[in-house]
Amino acid sequence: MNFTVEEIAEIIKGKVIGDEQIVIRSLSKIESGKEGSLSFLANSKYNHFLSSTQASAVIIGSDYNVEDNISTTLIKVDDPYQSFAIMLKEFTKDQHSEVGVHDSSVIDKSASIGSDTYIGANVHIGKDSIIGNGVKIYANCSVSDNVRIGDNTIIYSGVNVNSFCEIGNGCIIQSGVIIGCDGFGFAQNNDNEYTKVAQIGNVIVEDNVEIGANTTIDRATLGSTIIHSGVKLDNLIQVAHNVEIGKNTVIAAQSGIAGSTKIGENCMIGGQVGIIGHLEIGNNVKIAAQSGISSNIKNNDIVQGSPAFSISDYKRSYVYFRKLPQMNSLLSKLEKEINNLLNR
Amino acid sequence: MNFTVEEIAEIIKGKVIGDEQIVIRSLSKIESGKEGSLSFLANSKYNHFLSSTQASAVIIGSDYNVEDNISTTLIKVDDPYQSFAIMLKEFTKDQHSEVGVHDSSVIDKSASIGSDTYIGANVHIGKDSIIGNGVKIYANCSVSDNVRIGDNTIIYSGVNVNSFCEIGNGCIIQSGVIIGCDGFGFAQNNDNEYTKVAQIGNVIVEDNVEIGANTTIDRATLGSTIIHSGVKLDNLIQVAHNVEIGKNTVIAAQSGIAGSTKIGENCMIGGQVGIIGHLEIGNNVKIAAQSGISSNIKNNDIVQGSPAFSISDYKRSYVYFRKLPQMNSLLSKLEKEINNLLNR
Amino acid sequence: MNFTVEEIAEIIKGKVIGDEQIVIRSLSKIESGKEGSLSFLANSKYNHFLSSTQASAVIIGSDYNVEDNISTTLIKVDDPYQSFAIMLKEFTKDQHSEVGVHDSSVIDKSASIGSDTYIGANVHIGKDSIIGNGVKIYANCSVSDNVRIGDNTIIYSGVNVNSFCEIGNGCIIQSGVIIGCDGFGFAQNNDNEYTKVAQIGNVIVEDNVEIGANTTIDRATLGSTIIHSGVKLDNLIQVAHNVEIGKNTVIAAQSGIAGSTKIGENCMIGGQVGIIGHLEIGNNVKIAAQSGISSNIKNNDIVQGSPAFSISDYKRSYVYFRKLPQMNSLLSKLEKEINNLLNR
Repeated sequence: MNFTVEEIAEIIKGKVIGDEQIVIRSLSKIESGKEGSLSFLANSKYNHFLSSTQASAVIIGSDYNVEDNISTTLIKVDDPYQSFAIMLKEFTKDQHSEVGVHDSSVIDKSASIGSDTYIGANVHIGKDSIIGNGVKIYANCSVSDNVRIGDNTIIYSGVNVNSFCEIGNGCIIQSGVIIGCDGFGFAQNNDNEYTKVAQIGNVIVEDNVEIGANTTIDRATLGSTIIHSGVKLDNLIQVAHNVEIGKNTVIAAQSGIAGSTKIGENCMIGGQVGIIGHLEIGNNVKIAAQSGISSNIKNNDIVQGSPAFSISDYKRSYVYFRKLPQMNSLLSKLEKEINNLLNR
Repeated sequence: MNFTVEEIAEIIKGKVIGDEQIVIRSLSKIESGKEGSLSFLANSKYNHFLSSTQASAVIIGSDYNVEDNISTTLIKVDDPYQSFAIMLKEFTKDQHSEVGVHDSSVIDKSASIGSDTYIGANVHIGKDSIIGNGVKIYANCSVSDNVRIGDNTIIYSGVNVNSFCEIGNGCIIQSGVIIGCDGFGFAQNNDNEYTKVAQIGNVIVEDNVEIGANTTIDRATLGSTIIHSGVKLDNLIQVAHNVEIGKNTVIAAQSGIAGSTKIGENCMIGGQVGIIGHLEIGNNVKIAAQSGISSNIKNNDIVQGSPAFSISDYKRSYVYFRKLPQMNSLLSKLEKEINNLLNR
Repeated sequence: MNFTVEEIAEIIKGKVIGDEQIVIRSLSKIESGKEGSLSFLANSKYNHFLSSTQASAVIIGSDYNVEDNISTTLIKVDDPYQSFAIMLKEFTKDQHSEVGVHDSSVIDKSASIGSDTYIGANVHIGKDSIIGNGVKIYANCSVSDNVRIGDNTIIYSGVNVNSFCEIGNGCIIQSGVIIGCDGFGFAQNNDNEYTKVAQIGNVIVEDNVEIGANTTIDRATLGSTIIHSGVKLDNLIQVAHNVEIGKNTVIAAQSGIAGSTKIGENCMIGGQVGIIGHLEIGNNVKIAAQSGISSNIKNNDIVQGSPAFSISDYKRSYVYFRKLPQMNSLLSKLEKEINNLLNR
C-alpha cells in the first residue's frame, strides 16, 4: 500500500514541511531509512539521525526546532510515536485481505466455512469442523475433525489443530503451532513399562489470544486445557494437559508449564521458565527468566531462582554466591585466629 | 461412540441406581459433568460434587452410602477408577479406525503400504519406503525415501520423517515431530568458518515409543541415533546425533541431550534438563527439572542442579544459598568480635 | 552410490591389502561395521576392533603393523581420518541431485524458479517469490509471498518461510524451521489488555547458514532480523525480532535470544542459554550451557551462570555452593567459641 506525504498528513493531521507529492512505500527506523520510506523521531537520543537519514519523510514533534541542514520532508504532529503507530496500521491494513479457497486445499464436505475466509494451498480441514467468518488459514495447515475456529482468526502456514479443539475470535496463531497434541500421561506397570492414559479432552483457546511459532498446547486428559482471552504466548512454549492460563497473561519464549497448573490473570512470565504441575499461580505474578517454580505463588508476587523465591532476596543471595570464595577465605582465617585465641 | 447406562453397566459389571436408558456420549470429571456425560467418584475429597454434578451418570464405589438428595444415575462397582479407565478405552476404541488412502496424498510408486492403513490428506511418502499394517499417517506428514515404519504406529499431522529412518511397531508420533534431521556437526577451518560434516547415519525408534509434539531427533553422523522400546518423550525435546536412550526411560518437555550421550533404562528425566555430549547415564537414574548434567551418572542416582549433584545435597546447599545474606552478616560480626578479642 | 575397493583406493591414493573387487555400499564406524561397509581406524584405542569388525574394508595408516589374524580387506593411506572424510563426501555426492518440480506442488504464476531446482510434493510457493538456481525444497514446505532464496540452498521438508524474508546462497534449512513469524510485540492498554504492534520487518539469512530443526526466527518490527553468513544454529532455538547474529557464530540447541540483541562474530553459545533483549555481545565470546545473560559481554569473554559472570569465577563459587552446609556448620561453631571467649 502506498501513500503520498499529503495523504499521510491528512490521516495523522500533520503539517508538511517539504514535498507533499513524495510517494511513501514503506516504514523504517530513522537510522535505516531509505528512498520511499517514512520514519519518525520521538526520542531526542536519535535527533542526530535527522540530518543524515535516507528516509523520504520523517514524522516529528510540532515543537521540534528544525535546523537549516535538514533536506528530508517533515510532517509535524503533536505525538510522533502515536502518529507513526497509526501509519503502521494503515500500511498493514490490506494484509490478510485475500479471500477464497485454494484449489489444492482439501476440505471435508461436512465442514462449514464462513464468509470472507481464505483457505490456502494444501490446507486440510476435517469432518464437521466449523470455520468462522473472516478466518484466514494459510498454506499447509491441518485442521482436524470437529474443530471450531471463531471469526477473524488468522492461522499462519504449517499449523496443526487436532480434533475437537476450539479457537476463539480474533486470535493469531503463528506457523508451526500444535494445538491439541496428546498430554503426557502414562501408568507404569509391573514390568516398568508405561501404558498410555487416553487423552480425550480438548484445548480451548479463547478470544484475542496470540500463540507463537512452534508452541505446543496439549489436550486435556478429561475436560479442557484453557487459554483465556487476551493471553499472549511467545515461540516454543510448552503448555501441558489441563493447564489453565488466565486472561491477559503474557509468557516469553521457551517456557514450559506442566500438567494441571493454573496460572492467574495479568501475569508476566519470562523466557525459559519452568513451572511444575498441579500448582496455583496467582494474579499479577511476575516470574524472572529461567526461574523454576515448584510451589504455589500468591497474587502480585515477583520471584526468581530455581527453585524460585522473592526476586529481591534472590538477587541479594546471588551477590553473596559470587563472593563465596572470599567468604570462605575469611571463614578459614577466623577459624585459625579463634584456635590461636583458644590455645593462648 | 455412544453407550446406554445399561450397556456401560454390563461392560464394567456394575449395578445401576436410576435410569438405565440414558445415553452417554462423553466422559467428564465430576466437577465439570454435563448432560450426556459419565463421571466417576474415587476420591472422597470430591464427594460433595455428587449432589451438584451435571453428569448424566456417575460410577461410584459399591460401598458408597448414597444420600437421598442424589438425582444423578449411579453405577456401583468395586473399583470406580479402574472401571472408568475401562470406559475411557471403550470410548476411544474407534479412534484411528479409519482406513484408506486420501486422494490428495502423494505416494511414490516404489513405496510399499501395508493393509488396514490410513494415509491422510497431502501426505507425502517417498521412494522405497515401507509402511507396515495398521499404520495411520495423518494430514500433511512427510515421510521421505527409504523409511521403514512398523505395524500399528500412529503418526499425527505435520510430522517429518527424513530418509533412511526406522520407526517400530505400536509407536505414537505427535504432530510436528522431526525425525532424522541432520546432526549438528562442523569442522572449523583456518578462516573461522565451519564446514559441514556429512551426517549419513539414521534414527532408529524401536517399538511402543511415544514422541511428543515438535520434538526433534537428529540422525547419527555414522550409525544410528537409537530410541529403545517403551521410551516416552514429551514435547519440544532435542535428541542430538548418536544419542541412545534406554528402554522405558521417560523424559519431560524441553529437555535436551547432546551428541553421543548414552542414557540407561527406566530413567526419569524432568523438564528443561540439559545433558552434555559423550556421557554415560546409568539405569534408573532420576534427574530433577532444569538440571544441567556435565558428567557421567551411576545407576540409581538422583541428582539436581546445574551442574547437578546428589539431590539431597543440592537441596541442603540451596537452603543455605537462601540464607547467604544472614551468613555473611554473621561472618562480619564474628570478624569484628575476633578483632576486638585480638586487640584486647 | 557404490564403489569397489579398487575405485576407493584410487580416490584416496591408498594401497590395498586384500580383495580389490569387493563392493562398498555404505560407511560405518569400525565397531558397527557390516557386510558391504567401509570403516577407518585412526585412533589406537580402537585397534582391537580390527580383528573382529564385520566391515568389508578398513582404511588404516600406512605405518600400521598388520597382524596375521586380520581377514578384512585393508586400504593403507597416510591419514586414515582425512581419507575417510573424502569418502564421506563421495558417498553423499548424489544426495540432493534430483531436479524437477513435483506435480502436486503449488507455485504461484508470478514466482520465479531458477534452473536445476527441485520442488517437492505439496510445496507451496507464493506470489513474486524468487527461487535461485540449484535450490532444493522438499515436501510440504511453504514459501510465502515475496520471498527470495539464493542459489544452492537446501530446504528440508516441512519448513515455513513467511513473506518478504530472504535466504542467501548455500544455506541448509532443516525440517520444521519457521522463518519470519511475527515478533512478540504488544502495547498494554488501560484495561490490562495487550494490542499487537504490527511486525512489518523481515528476516535476512545470509550465505552458508545452517538452521536446525524446529528453530524459529521472528521477523523484525521494522527493518530486519539478520543472521550473518556462516552462522550455524542448532535445533529448537528462538531468535526474536530485530536480533542480529554475527558471522560464523555457532549456537547449540534450545537457546533463546530476546529482541534487538546483537551478537558478535565467532561466538560459541552452549545449549539452553537465554539472552535478554537489547544487549551487545562481543566477538569471540563463549557462553556455557544453561547460562542466563542479562548484561553486555565484552569481546573474548567466557561466562557461565544465571545471571552469568566469568566462567572461572562461577566454577569457584559453585565449589563453595556445594560446601555451604559445612561452611554454615563451621560458622555456627565459631560463633559459639567466640561467645565463650567473650564470656570468659
